[in-house]
Amino acid sequence: MTTICYIAHPDISDSSSQQFLIQSGKWQQSCDYVDLANKQNWLDAEQEGQRLSQYDQIIFQFPLYWYQAPALLKQWLDVVWEELPVECLKGKSLGLVIVVGAKASHYQAGGRVGRTLSELLSSYEVLAKHFGMAFRPIFAIYQFQYLSEVEKQRLMWEYLFYLSGGDASHFRQYQRYLIEQAKLNVPKGVTMSEVERMQWEQMVTQLELSADELEELMDLVNEVS
Amino acid sequence: MTTICYIAHPDISDSSSQQFLIQSGKWQQSCDYVDLANKQNWLDAEQEGQRLSQYDQIIFQFPLYWYQAPALLKQWLDVVWEELPVECLKGKSLGLVIVVGAKASHYQAGGRVGRTLSELLSSYEVLAKHFGMAFRPIFAIYQFQYLSEVEKQRLMWEYLFYLSGGDASHFRQYQRYLIEQAKLNVPKGVTMSEVERMQWEQMVTQLELSADELEELMDLVNEVS
Repeated sequence: MTTICYIAHPDISDSSSQQFLIQSGKWQQSCDYVDLANKQNWLDAEQEGQRLSQYDQIIFQFPLYWYQAPALLKQWLDVVWEELPVECLKGKSLGLVIVVGAKASHYQAGGRVGRTLSELLSSYEVLAKHFGMAFRPIFAIYQFQYLSEVEKQRLMWEYLFYLSGGDASHFRQYQRYLIEQAKLNVPKGVTMSEVERMQWEQMVTQLELSADELEELMDLVNEVS
Repeated sequence: MTTICYIAHPDISDSSSQQFLIQSGKWQQSCDYVDLANKQNWLDAEQEGQRLSQYDQIIFQFPLYWYQAPALLKQWLDVVWEELPVECLKGKSLGLVIVVGAKASHYQAGGRVGRTLSELLSSYEVLAKHFGMAFRPIFAIYQFQYLSEVEKQRLMWEYLFYLSGGDASHFRQYQRYLIEQAKLNVPKGVTMSEVERMQWEQMVTQLELSADELEELMDLVNEVS
């Protein structure tokens, strides 16, 4: 799954959350970023169509300003997507990565905002439909500024899983993904002795066995019920 | 009820629907228009706050591009409203006048678009809530280009009623409004003889009596049921 992620933020260098996401995204080798604030990154509709055709998945990544994307994203859509051939996106996925300043609980009926992100951003769902794309569940990050280091690390993996086309709320898929990553990546910046490396590999194997057992158990439960 | 109507359209002179609405709006003496495409009409937040404080009602009027407002409106919101004191709009009304190219039936669950205008534009409802404003039902105009002259005339009066704070789906209110307008305005561009004027006035009086009777009847029905 190859991904292109368009960031709509007036100044990425000034945003700790965007910096964090871009740094995280670098682990995902098949993900490219485009900063829409830099107009030099804008292509005409034909060139953009060609660029987009190389990816399986398109992500719009932005902070929520006045319960919408920053004007930048819409400017780009109005100018470039207006001219895009409707077939060039067919079968691809469209995802949204949204950075929200307020609490998640505000975004529900009866909450302070009173509308869900799905409602507020439903125009992108319809945009995807218009182009024959699959619209993915929104990846929302609430109150990034209050996240602990541990929470940020969790966020990083969930974000990487999202970029790769996964959904961390699917527990089993996400578990498999993490085990796969643990196999591929020894923790960065850590020098390991031969013994430590063996222990690491044993731990990963153990996790994999547990995951297999869990799956067998769930299959069994499904059969019985 | 005084109204200020901000139009977000890249080129009003090129839009027959916007021209029609502005011409219609001239009948409503207490409505002022601001063309946002002309950046000279943009004020800084303080001046805009002062301008807005003079009106009871704010309207955003725009065509639907990609199921949202044109980027122009969001640019203005991001720059000007971002700095607006939250108290300066309290108690006012926010209305939306939306020109939609497609059929109304597309904008519903199961329709081609699959989302309602209320959903697609819910961020404005939340914006109104944020500023302590009353959000009004959306005034939507579908497929303006296919309207007959008679339909356009109906649209004109419904639009004027909306600008004055009314809702044409409230039949009795709307009826009273039309009678009031008929009293005030003799049809334009028509020279009437004394006899014709008397006939016109008699007709209006007759309509008013019918409206009174209808109201009495409805009150009676309400008492009985």
